[in-house]
Amino acid sequence: MLYYLFAYLDQFDFPGAGMFQYISFRSAMTVITSLIISTMFGKRIINYLRKQQIGEEIRDLGLEGQMSKKGTPTMGGVIILGSIVIPTLLFADILNIYVVLMLITTAWLGVIGFLDDYIKTFKKNKEGLAGKFKIIGQVGLGLMVGLTLYLSDDVVIREKPVAKKNATPTEIVTGADVQSKANDVKSTKTTIPFFKNNEFDYEYLVSFLGKHSQKAAWVVFVIFVILIVTAVSNGANLTDGLDGLATGTSAIIGATLGILAYVGGNVIYADYLNIMYIPSSGELVVFMSAFIGATIGFLWYNSYPAQVFMGDTGSLALGGIIAVFAIIIRKELLIPILCGIFLMENVSVLMQVSYFKYTKRKYGEGRRIFKMSPLHHHYQMKGYPEPKIVMRFMIVGIILAVFTIVTLKIR
Amino acid sequence: MLYYLFAYLDQFDFPGAGMFQYISFRSAMTVITSLIISTMFGKRIINYLRKQQIGEEIRDLGLEGQMSKKGTPTMGGVIILGSIVIPTLLFADILNIYVVLMLITTAWLGVIGFLDDYIKTFKKNKEGLAGKFKIIGQVGLGLMVGLTLYLSDDVVIREKPVAKKNATPTEIVTGADVQSKANDVKSTKTTIPFFKNNEFDYEYLVSFLGKHSQKAAWVVFVIFVILIVTAVSNGANLTDGLDGLATGTSAIIGATLGILAYVGGNVIYADYLNIMYIPSSGELVVFMSAFIGATIGFLWYNSYPAQVFMGDTGSLALGGIIAVFAIIIRKELLIPILCGIFLMENVSVLMQVSYFKYTKRKYGEGRRIFKMSPLHHHYQMKGYPEPKIVMRFMIVGIILAVFTIVTLKIR
Repeated sequence: MLYYLFAYLDQFDFPGAGMFQYISFRSAMTVITSLIISTMFGKRIINYLRKQQIGEEIRDLGLEGQMSKKGTPTMGGVIILGSIVIPTLLFADILNIYVVLMLITTAWLGVIGFLDDYIKTFKKNKEGLAGKFKIIGQVGLGLMVGLTLYLSDDVVIREKPVAKKNATPTEIVTGADVQSKANDVKSTKTTIPFFKNNEFDYEYLVSFLGKHSQKAAWVVFVIFVILIVTAVSNGANLTDGLDGLATGTSAIIGATLGILAYVGGNVIYADYLNIMYIPSSGELVVFMSAFIGATIGFLWYNSYPAQVFMGDTGSLALGGIIAVFAIIIRKELLIPILCGIFLMENVSVLMQVSYFKYTKRKYGEGRRIFKMSPLHHHYQMKGYPEPKIVMRFMIVGIILAVFTIVTLKIR
Repeated sequence: MLYYLFAYLDQFDFPGAGMFQYISFRSAMTVITSLIISTMFGKRIINYLRKQQIGEEIRDLGLEGQMSKKGTPTMGGVIILGSIVIPTLLFADILNIYVVLMLITTAWLGVIGFLDDYIKTFKKNKEGLAGKFKIIGQVGLGLMVGLTLYLSDDVVIREKPVAKKNATPTEIVTGADVQSKANDVKSTKTTIPFFKNNEFDYEYLVSFLGKHSQKAAWVVFVIFVILIVTAVSNGANLTDGLDGLATGTSAIIGATLGILAYVGGNVIYADYLNIMYIPSSGELVVFMSAFIGATIGFLWYNSYPAQVFMGDTGSLALGGIIAVFAIIIRKELLIPILCGIFLMENVSVLMQVSYFKYTKRKYGEGRRIFKMSPLHHHYQMKGYPEPKIVMRFMIVGIILAVFTIVTLKIR
């Protein structure tokens, strides 16, 4: 909201108000505000949660040091949610279609996660929210996001952007005057590594439909959005099993997506790096700055040994935000690389369960591939200390982030 | 060396050889190679060190869990050194003056640190290399670097760079044809935040000398170089007291300096962001990629609980590299912010020692400000678990890195 206030004040040459047109300046303010909220207020919220006895009922998995976690308050995700939403409302352009989508995603999955945690904690119902409702919530969000991106006139990509010489910051960010909006098109194009020009059009998948293929491509796109939102959201949820693991890996993924959004939303960089330019998407950098500040600030308390857990309140939203953000900046097909940790965790559970069922049917006794799933528990059973596993998963996360950025340069 | 090989092959249109002109491509190759060396060969080197019984003799400071570190091999810094030097030799332009300076710095401080560790470990002399020789080594390096930057004709900055439209990658990086080299000047200018245009000239300090001031400014500069190299090198050395602490904070600082070198060495970004353009300094990004890969790879083994310590072999070099790199890209006055962790550690020791001596003289008994110095031991004595302290110091390091980058945008 400060964005509009200062844009108004800037008309009267109010000192400093001009700074607020810069995405970089607002992102800096956002990350600082977000860090302050998560660290300063985080402590109080943790104390409050502890007083309310919102400690997670730890299921005894027979892991070393695990029972000592009894009593650590959960639902710490509210700290993350607050540290994302408040600075975004303050510093981002809250009428920007992409920012609106991100705020809806955060609130929507935050509420679902919160309900789940609430039922687990206060109703002492270990299953939490019925799986059915969780899935409906995730699919519903995917559908909403997919349809918005399909139907909104504000959601376009600009073909062959050319940076104007000596463009002002406003021009660079808004694209105004830099090039005619005539080149703005609705498109089902996305980014894919190793392909020619790094571009892929969902239309290719349905090209056999001839003249109906463009419409059908949007259907394919919306289905992809639903699948991606659900998968990444669940992936983050499964990853959240060791102190600081989901928080740390999410921060790394967030920083990478922030860089991609910055270059893809800035006509100068998009032109120079020859990547897809998406008008108005630069504003997402402000949102992602809040996300980065929130996760890093939360890590202050959530790192080993944790004083608080995020619960589903945090993990579902973290995953959903990452998914929707990647979709908006058309980098969703990079998710299997960038979010490789989430993927591994998801796949390890899938493999474990299906192999167990298969062997049970075939040999009468269920066998296991991993000592325990999700994957991080496997290493824990093998005797690796918890902080070591977390740090190594984070290092793998950094390597995957480097790969993600590198793939875009190879064509 | 591959850089020259492929530049040669490129003349015959050897497929893919053209990629090697891109700093971004070579940096990616470098970081991957460096990660492979540090993680794959790291394990073997650790086993070798353990066999040689190169375990650090831990002085009993009465800290929890500390004695369990007995037997952990030290001198792991050789892993870091190898992972920096080998990929740099392979992928960087090794005739580039700045790369040469960085390689000399790495080798020089690596050898001094190695001698220190060697004497400690094999001569069972806990003091290691006499402090006198360490200081002489650091001052000598500072002098050499300072004089090279002063006297070499290759070390210049370009005033008012203007990016040429549609410049080729080679042009962008080398600056060739983009603008006349006539604007290249020897200069004692550096970058300082909050000042007009973010510039500061060492000449201001000696402007009272009139026509001799430019010469005198270089003397001031060389003295600064010596002080900075010594201070940062010792800072990293002191910081290296908890598992993963010096490694993690150095990786964060390295990534930040890498970004600053990239934008300052690329005429397009330097022009757009209005920051100092230093011809040929972009090549340093390749070196820094090796540094980042080396530290992150080393963290794989060095994070809590550590399987190896870097020893002085690693820490003196890490600090020295950071100092010389920052000096070359004229960001040395940002070090107090960016390397705030090193500074705090240095200052905590200084405060502790001087206050103890002062109170001893005044009251007959020495008093302490911190429970123990350097600072990280203070928190350990207060009962914070080791991995928590390390993660929080790293979070502070990230915040300081954000501040460092932000300050450059505020003028």
